[in-house]
Amino acid sequence: MTIERIVSEIRKKQSFLCIGLDVDISKIPTCLLNKPSPIFEFNKAIIDATNHLCVAYKPNIAFYEAYGQEGWKALKLTIDYLNKNYSEIFTVADAKRGDIGNTSRMYAKAFFEDLGFDSVTASPYMGSDSIEPFLKFKNKYTILLSLTSNKGAFDFQTKEINNEYLFEHVLETSKTWLNSDNLMYVVGATKSEYFKKVREIVPNNFLLVPGIGAQGGCLEEICKHGLNDQVGLLVNSSRSIIYASKEIDFAEKSAMKAKEIQQKMKKILSNY
Amino acid sequence: MTIERIVSEIRKKQSFLCIGLDVDISKIPTCLLNKPSPIFEFNKAIIDATNHLCVAYKPNIAFYEAYGQEGWKALKLTIDYLNKNYSEIFTVADAKRGDIGNTSRMYAKAFFEDLGFDSVTASPYMGSDSIEPFLKFKNKYTILLSLTSNKGAFDFQTKEINNEYLFEHVLETSKTWLNSDNLMYVVGATKSEYFKKVREIVPNNFLLVPGIGAQGGCLEEICKHGLNDQVGLLVNSSRSIIYASKEIDFAEKSAMKAKEIQQKMKKILSNY
Repeated sequence: MTIERIVSEIRKKQSFLCIGLDVDISKIPTCLLNKPSPIFEFNKAIIDATNHLCVAYKPNIAFYEAYGQEGWKALKLTIDYLNKNYSEIFTVADAKRGDIGNTSRMYAKAFFEDLGFDSVTASPYMGSDSIEPFLKFKNKYTILLSLTSNKGAFDFQTKEINNEYLFEHVLETSKTWLNSDNLMYVVGATKSEYFKKVREIVPNNFLLVPGIGAQGGCLEEICKHGLNDQVGLLVNSSRSIIYASKEIDFAEKSAMKAKEIQQKMKKILSNY
Repeated sequence: MTIERIVSEIRKKQSFLCIGLDVDISKIPTCLLNKPSPIFEFNKAIIDATNHLCVAYKPNIAFYEAYGQEGWKALKLTIDYLNKNYSEIFTVADAKRGDIGNTSRMYAKAFFEDLGFDSVTASPYMGSDSIEPFLKFKNKYTILLSLTSNKGAFDFQTKEINNEYLFEHVLETSKTWLNSDNLMYVVGATKSEYFKKVREIVPNNFLLVPGIGAQGGCLEEICKHGLNDQVGLLVNSSRSIIYASKEIDFAEKSAMKAKEIQQKMKKILSNY
């Protein structure tokens, strides 16, 4: 997937919504539980109901690994379904991986080649040689954790190194890595006061922004400094959309919830 | 698994060797390739040949994910085989995970409950609430990346925050987390000059030390400051043991290589 394609879809749909497919089997409608792969059936229904309102889907890999081989199968069915039926949609494997070089190469192979995702999230802690194997893939994107949406982000990410925060140092250093054009960054919606600083360092890269919805971040606040010429934002919501209802109308209700957010985005884009 | 049990096995076997099961299918003997699960058959042969020489096995999860459902199945077969036949062996899922709280809970469930590992490696970048869900499990261990063996470790881990390195800050901060007794730490063998500092901050915790063998770290150097009253070290070697031969005698050759390291460890323990 090219950046141009992502931007063109955003303009067309008037949406920069990413929907998180974080499927907890205890929270999905009971009517799906007797299907061969309940998790995939749930995802399929959500995708069919919401694809015109969003530009990206983001399965968090933890929720699939927790169900072992069955979970991995549901993940594969989901990404295959997306790639076959909605190839205009940007796909994110939210995996937060990162390891020594020969191991990161295996993860990159797993997510980009075998599964066929457009992007994967990665942790910067192990530095350049843990990320560069991901960056080698053309038209694939590595979304580096910089400032995350959780409370624990303040433990290390906002500590000062030479008068700048660690997350700023991560952003700056990552720009020197091979094929850094293939980088996007995770910046939490709950940290909107830092978006100005982030944009000073990476004015052009896309930001993946989790934390609106269940975590409480405000869409208008992040857009104030986060938007750029190419929109430059993918704002994620997971639980508040996919668990909008536990009844037989769950997909319809999730689309209503997604539409609420898309309408806000449409308004923001028209004023920008 | 209790710490006492690990220490007792180390004393009995005169070994603190951990063998990394990082199986790349292109590197395993061709005689295994027609078996139903070549990766599991390879692991089984290595485990049967080496279990008396080591106290831990560490599959790196990337190498299994890279083969999708088949890989996940091989991982499950491997951990089940270990738990059934060699329950005295400490098992490490080298996964380097870490996510927001409700997601880390899913990863903890996957590795500790569904797969049944004794421990999992985790990345500290997202802070307390990304690690504490792992620490809740009794007699299960979370092995936190502090100073890794790769070159990229110098990008962030050795940057100074208030006159101490980031990895020292990680060690100190992690001691304040709930159930921090369940922490161990990854410290790379290629960074032996830092072991003294590490031991000043965490004198009692076990350290998992990758980087001898293919990465070039020196066993004697790490032991100088790394050993404590309970030995306190698990030193990992992967490629140099498991790929000692690509012929039909691969398991025998891997045992010879493991024995070389075990003999060095025996000598070190007898002089300590």
